[in-house]
Amino acid sequence: MDFSFTRIKGGIGAARGFLSSAVSCGIKNPDSDRLDLALIYSESPCVSAGTFTTNKVKAAPVRVSQNHLRKGAIRAIVANSGNANACTGLQGINDANEMCLSVAKGLGLKKTEVGVCSTGVIGLPMPMMRLAPKMPELIEGLAAKRGNDVARAIITSDTHEKEIAISFDMGDHRVRLGGCVKGAGMICPSMATMLCFITTDANISSDNLRKAVQEAVEESFNRITIDGDMSTNDTVLVLANGASGMPRMRRNGSDCNKFRKALSWLMLELAKAIVRDGERVTKFVTVNVKGAKTHLDAKKVAEAVCKSALVKSSWNGGDPNWGRIIHAVGYSRARIREELIDISIGGKAACLGGLQADTPMDQLRAAVAEPEFEIEINLNQGEAEYRMYSSDLSPEYVDFNRSEYAYWKQARKDGLV
Amino acid sequence: MDFSFTRIKGGIGAARGFLSSAVSCGIKNPDSDRLDLALIYSESPCVSAGTFTTNKVKAAPVRVSQNHLRKGAIRAIVANSGNANACTGLQGINDANEMCLSVAKGLGLKKTEVGVCSTGVIGLPMPMMRLAPKMPELIEGLAAKRGNDVARAIITSDTHEKEIAISFDMGDHRVRLGGCVKGAGMICPSMATMLCFITTDANISSDNLRKAVQEAVEESFNRITIDGDMSTNDTVLVLANGASGMPRMRRNGSDCNKFRKALSWLMLELAKAIVRDGERVTKFVTVNVKGAKTHLDAKKVAEAVCKSALVKSSWNGGDPNWGRIIHAVGYSRARIREELIDISIGGKAACLGGLQADTPMDQLRAAVAEPEFEIEINLNQGEAEYRMYSSDLSPEYVDFNRSEYAYWKQARKDGLV
Repeated sequence: MDFSFTRIKGGIGAARGFLSSAVSCGIKNPDSDRLDLALIYSESPCVSAGTFTTNKVKAAPVRVSQNHLRKGAIRAIVANSGNANACTGLQGINDANEMCLSVAKGLGLKKTEVGVCSTGVIGLPMPMMRLAPKMPELIEGLAAKRGNDVARAIITSDTHEKEIAISFDMGDHRVRLGGCVKGAGMICPSMATMLCFITTDANISSDNLRKAVQEAVEESFNRITIDGDMSTNDTVLVLANGASGMPRMRRNGSDCNKFRKALSWLMLELAKAIVRDGERVTKFVTVNVKGAKTHLDAKKVAEAVCKSALVKSSWNGGDPNWGRIIHAVGYSRARIREELIDISIGGKAACLGGLQADTPMDQLRAAVAEPEFEIEINLNQGEAEYRMYSSDLSPEYVDFNRSEYAYWKQARKDGLV
Repeated sequence: MDFSFTRIKGGIGAARGFLSSAVSCGIKNPDSDRLDLALIYSESPCVSAGTFTTNKVKAAPVRVSQNHLRKGAIRAIVANSGNANACTGLQGINDANEMCLSVAKGLGLKKTEVGVCSTGVIGLPMPMMRLAPKMPELIEGLAAKRGNDVARAIITSDTHEKEIAISFDMGDHRVRLGGCVKGAGMICPSMATMLCFITTDANISSDNLRKAVQEAVEESFNRITIDGDMSTNDTVLVLANGASGMPRMRRNGSDCNKFRKALSWLMLELAKAIVRDGERVTKFVTVNVKGAKTHLDAKKVAEAVCKSALVKSSWNGGDPNWGRIIHAVGYSRARIREELIDISIGGKAACLGGLQADTPMDQLRAAVAEPEFEIEINLNQGEAEYRMYSSDLSPEYVDFNRSEYAYWKQARKDGLV
């Protein structure tokens, strides 16, 4: 970034005027005491913007939150892990509405001022009998320094919570921007692909915030993949309450540009954190496509490479296998000429003009042995570029995802199915 | 099929007037004595047709065979396993031409009457110093009953050879049709995705054969996937020499229709055999999409489900996870309405109208425990259908594909890189 900012502690709790809370309901497992229901609340009115999955099968909370966002600003977000409330029909919509309503009542808000998000298993009803009784405790627990509890409550197969916050100056005022995110599985580019909550005390109009969010999502969450599976629940929600005391930013003014850059940087860091903490991931790989005729060609190449099971398996094995990379470039449907393609791995040439380069194999293997490395694919046909962030595919990923039967067994015990 | 035919022994050796041979060159590993170079030859002139990968990165033998097929009929096919001769530049084209030329010389054919196919690792030069000296032995070995040797010589990570042959009557003449196939990895729908050779002693024009082959490939090899990775070397070649003695079929006559049906049946059986013998595959799954608005919508749904890493992992785990199936339907970009979708597994309703059906879970788990089962997805929006054949994804698949470093080490030992 070409302006300076400071990393500060925390995530969504860092911005002024936001309170957070989280409780344990045992949504997935009644015997567990891990946090699984979270609440974010802006003490003062705020503006909000969001993006949602483009999967046509949308979870109930996605439908409800989209509807509320359309009607005006969202001032509170209630989110649970352990059940996606997806493919749950009218009952699911009722449950999502019920979650909003009970938060709205407790906080003196309109129901449409509350956003709702869920993540977990698809197709099983929400265990509302365990969730509803915890609502009063959730609301009473709201406090300024509990952002980390929210970050922990929304994760599922993630190994740790993921949050970042920064601060920067806008005129005479210090502005804070922070967020948290959950990812791990069902991660695929093309629209926000997880849950992400961001708060800021910047003073920005609803229109400007919406534009900034769309731009930042396009360059962050839409650029990552772990397993190529787009979720039914992906949601990014950003709240801005102006509590920093700064005057409202002018559209396209320097402050607004600065804010957009800060938001883009933050989202990209959160998106990368999702890939690094992907299910059973051992490698974080940046795929940088250059020299394409068009942006779309570059994107097709990046997506084909980042999603190839064989390419991702070879990364897991520490094999600098450029043959598999170029084979994925070939079926990407982008306009390419095999004899022009250069591929480098960790800055070392692996393929030049479609043929094996003469870099010693030891150097290429050393590059792929790193936990994070970059693949550059130069099509040498134009000026367009596209960058994506991917992971390896491990035997442990498949093993981890073999069965969700335990969810069903609990739902049966709960009398929900 | 609505006409009767008889399964007979063998594969490409079953049709009259075709000779086969195979030798061991140690292409992948000089210390191994497995067969890895094969030859098929029609004693009399024949017609031929073929389809090739649509990957834009095409292996040298694909380019050479396409060129030869364009110039007229192919009468002999030379094929090797252990090296794909892909991404090998001018040297690769020279090597593929050299393979054709030495077969042509030995058999008194024009070079353009010889087709060439390779399968194996991408990006390493062919070890011609081990292959070329074996050409005389390969040609001398031609015999009527060696079709099985060819089927064995072309496999790589396949666990066994795959060949089928049938015979049926056309007028007063008995006609034979047989083929062999190799698959295992890099298997993805959209164009022939492997090596497949088919011979017949039917008497058919080149035009009619081409049409029959295109139709049969569309309904067989284009309907399968193991890992979603389209290979650079996929080739189907069909030779018909008329040695049965039957008169030339009339275009669109009843004989021609009968032949088309027989060819389609044979190719579908070979395609299914590829899926069943996919790398570390434990389940063969037929995905049958019904009630789509258009053929393309049905196809998009089938492909999304058949390629989803999460769906395939759940099949491996014996989990009748309809939630993951409907989530893939949702991101398929087909026109769907969640609340209309029915999904059955092994004939048992798993999801009705987008919601969990009340079939006992034990019955669904029993269905997925079978080594072969069918998933039916009814979109209930129209009349269009599409059927695909897929496999599970196993931890062992990923483990098996972690590294091809051994290939490189041999190539280095050979002085090729």
